[in-house]
Amino acid sequence: MEALSQQLDFILELDKLKAVYRRALIKTDNNRFENSAEHSWHIALTAHVFAPYAEDKVDISRVTLMLLLHDIVEIDAGDTFAFDEKAILAEQSDKEIAAANRIFGLLPDTQKEYFTALWHEFEQAETPDASFAKAMDRILPLIQNMKNDGGSWAQNTVYKQQVINRNKHLATSVPKLWTYVLEQIDIATANGWLLEE
Amino acid sequence: MEALSQQLDFILELDKLKAVYRRALIKTDNNRFENSAEHSWHIALTAHVFAPYAEDKVDISRVTLMLLLHDIVEIDAGDTFAFDEKAILAEQSDKEIAAANRIFGLLPDTQKEYFTALWHEFEQAETPDASFAKAMDRILPLIQNMKNDGGSWAQNTVYKQQVINRNKHLATSVPKLWTYVLEQIDIATANGWLLEE
Ligand SMILES: [Ca+2]
Repeated sequence: MEALSQQLDFILELDKLKAVYRRALIKTDNNRFENSAEHSWHIALTAHVFAPYAEDKVDISRVTLMLLLHDIVEIDAGDTFAFDEKAILAEQSDKEIAAANRIFGLLPDTQKEYFTALWHEFEQAETPDASFAKAMDRILPLIQNMKNDGGSWAQNTVYKQQVINRNKHLATSVPKLWTYVLEQIDIATANGWLLEE
Repeated sequence: MEALSQQLDFILELDKLKAVYRRALIKTDNNRFENSAEHSWHIALTAHVFAPYAEDKVDISRVTLMLLLHDIVEIDAGDTFAFDEKAILAEQSDKEIAAANRIFGLLPDTQKEYFTALWHEFEQAETPDASFAKAMDRILPLIQNMKNDGGSWAQNTVYKQQVINRNKHLATSVPKLWTYVLEQIDIATANGWLLEE
């Protein structure tokens, strides 16, 4: 029962991600903040819907698990806003590695190693699966913000070029969506949701 | 761009599941109610963790997608409490079928048909994949309630035998977890979280 008891601890630990709030706003729920658990669900399904547009062959099963896992480290490390200063983001990276060790470390060895490896692969965003997964994590807030009068962009100070840089690898991993993203960024800038300079 | 525009509508529609609240309580977030989007994320990961215990061979990729999709119908139909009266649950079933037609119907045909078929397969719970997925959907609230002084059981009027019936097909699809579930139900009854008669 040792493995089962470790697995139950991990499953219960996951509940904490439902208390990690992001800057994104949920328009359909009185513009409350979105939490990282429901966000992870949403991008996993987004990946399934957009999978036919992936430029390289991707294993949607691995992509999905990466996306379900990718934010778990925020249980310890918290969420950072994508457009925070670089120094904050670098410190965040150390905290997330420690978090991955602790949280995936709750699991029996085989699962611990598999989940940890997938999380690192996602973070590095070098394989086709990870690159596509990362693209999904980045396009979804854009889709949400465009529907919500600029959403988290308009609520903070965000420049057009920052959003272009953040989404740039869509150009190679999902070119069809890159065209769409550039159009949306232009509209957002024209609306004043993103700043030109 | 017609397909892309349909897919974007579907992805935006999904946001509404974050506003569908269940009876389950999130202990780690001041015992607020859980929404169906974060719940879907949690059971998809639970399925990955417990997959090694499946009695029949299951395709974890299909199981995961079923679990990510299974509650989307609640956007129109709302959540019902598992232990509501039978009449309420029967009426719910009609509403859910209409909801599946409308919401999956937002997608291009191929995806609409694939997602709708998976949703029906989950509901019928006859294939090994669907039966295992259903088992995950049912065991997770038990795990959460046991950690939270009886949680949604203790807040409502729920009988031991109802929880046994609800989890009964764990006996065949995931026997190792069935043993665990029976032990937990006994503890919950001894604690007064579940009623004996
Ligand atoms: Ca993220």
